[in-house]
Amino acid sequence: MAETIQSVERAAAILRLLASGGRALSLAELARGMNLPKGTLHGIVRTLVGVGFVEQDESTGRYRLGPALLHLGSSYLDVNELRSHALNWADALAGRSGESVWIGMLHEDQVLVIHHVFRPDDSMQVLQVGMLLATHATAIGKVLLAFDPYAEACMPLLALTKKTIVSAAALELELERVRARGWAAEIEELEEGEAAIAAPIRDQRGLAVGAIGIRGAIERLMQGDEVRMELVSYVRDAARAITRDLSR
Amino acid sequence: MAETIQSVERAAAILRLLASGGRALSLAELARGMNLPKGTLHGIVRTLVGVGFVEQDESTGRYRLGPALLHLGSSYLDVNELRSHALNWADALAGRSGESVWIGMLHEDQVLVIHHVFRPDDSMQVLQVGMLLATHATAIGKVLLAFDPYAEACMPLLALTKKTIVSAAALELELERVRARGWAAEIEELEEGEAAIAAPIRDQRGLAVGAIGIRGAIERLMQGDEVRMELVSYVRDAARAITRDLSR
Repeated sequence: MAETIQSVERAAAILRLLASGGRALSLAELARGMNLPKGTLHGIVRTLVGVGFVEQDESTGRYRLGPALLHLGSSYLDVNELRSHALNWADALAGRSGESVWIGMLHEDQVLVIHHVFRPDDSMQVLQVGMLLATHATAIGKVLLAFDPYAEACMPLLALTKKTIVSAAALELELERVRARGWAAEIEELEEGEAAIAAPIRDQRGLAVGAIGIRGAIERLMQGDEVRMELVSYVRDAARAITRDLSR
Repeated sequence: MAETIQSVERAAAILRLLASGGRALSLAELARGMNLPKGTLHGIVRTLVGVGFVEQDESTGRYRLGPALLHLGSSYLDVNELRSHALNWADALAGRSGESVWIGMLHEDQVLVIHHVFRPDDSMQVLQVGMLLATHATAIGKVLLAFDPYAEACMPLLALTKKTIVSAAALELELERVRARGWAAEIEELEEGEAAIAAPIRDQRGLAVGAIGIRGAIERLMQGDEVRMELVSYVRDAARAITRDLSR
């Protein structure tokens, strides 16, 4: 039984490794990344190819993630209760604010984007559902860190722009502020020229199970040094509405 | 080694079962669906929970797909070569046609949607990336059946509307027509009131590796009993452009 479990754990680790690189990996590279002999990995990789979770490039022989995972990922979204309750409110928030809307939840100390509504204009935008974002550098992440007692930021705090909070003490002060105000702002901490606002979505016990927010150009989201309070009120309205829906 | 592989295969089958139902399943339901004793499944399910591929509902104890799959699914999209070459052409096709654009490839005898551009207007639309569609009832699916020698339709051919082709002989005639014209039409065969047009994306050997198409209301896509040839030309232009890009 212990053996059985180990092979499933290793299969998951192989998939995670293939997801992290953004490129196809050879069996030797996989073996190096997993710190295991090639022979041990080969049977698992072959099985993963067989079930469509991994595919092998015909010309290079390298391995990459397979199409079955895309369908599983979209099936996950279908059963995600938070997302299904939030869909309509997210659309309404995009309409009201004129900005793109994001819903995220914690996953492995990062923010997993589970919903993304494009800014209601004709600009080119790429869907970010399934992306992982740094908690300490995003408004949604700060909300989750502030209102989920089990949440922890990934250490060390990496600087993504010149304004990212990289000291643990400064982040703790910022999270105190988020707790006191009930919402978080992010001002050029993830992307230069971009700001974001987020508020917590809570479950029946009052714990943050996710966060919803808007993101856009600082010229539109800010007035002087602060985010526009009118936009903050829209985000908090949406977060409260989803929280109410969830506890019904 | 055989044991090891079996547990990975069973883990994949559990995930597929959880994806198919659209709801959370108990261990007993999983055991019934897999035709295996609960004891055999429990270790694998617990391991899948440990790696984030499955989550257990706290109140009901039932299992559903987990958030790690969403990230793996989106990582698959990042390394999908067909999709990355097609992104800009798909946007251009949506702009030119004024309709939603879909790109699909074969996966387990179905059409896996790997890209979806919303119709460029303000209407509510739900992203369908990761969905599986019937090959015999869709323009994209007919293109893949016609131009991929290994493709097979799922039997029996299910009627999704009154106009779905459900006879194997009629489907073979339709595929002959698709091969002769180089593109496929779908007229209320998947959804009543909707039509679609698709054309093949080919690899360097000339085999169809995917298909791109548009979908929309019959009132806009059709003129009399036929789809509008101007729209067909837009779809074929896009398919050829992506084919050229892929073989560079």
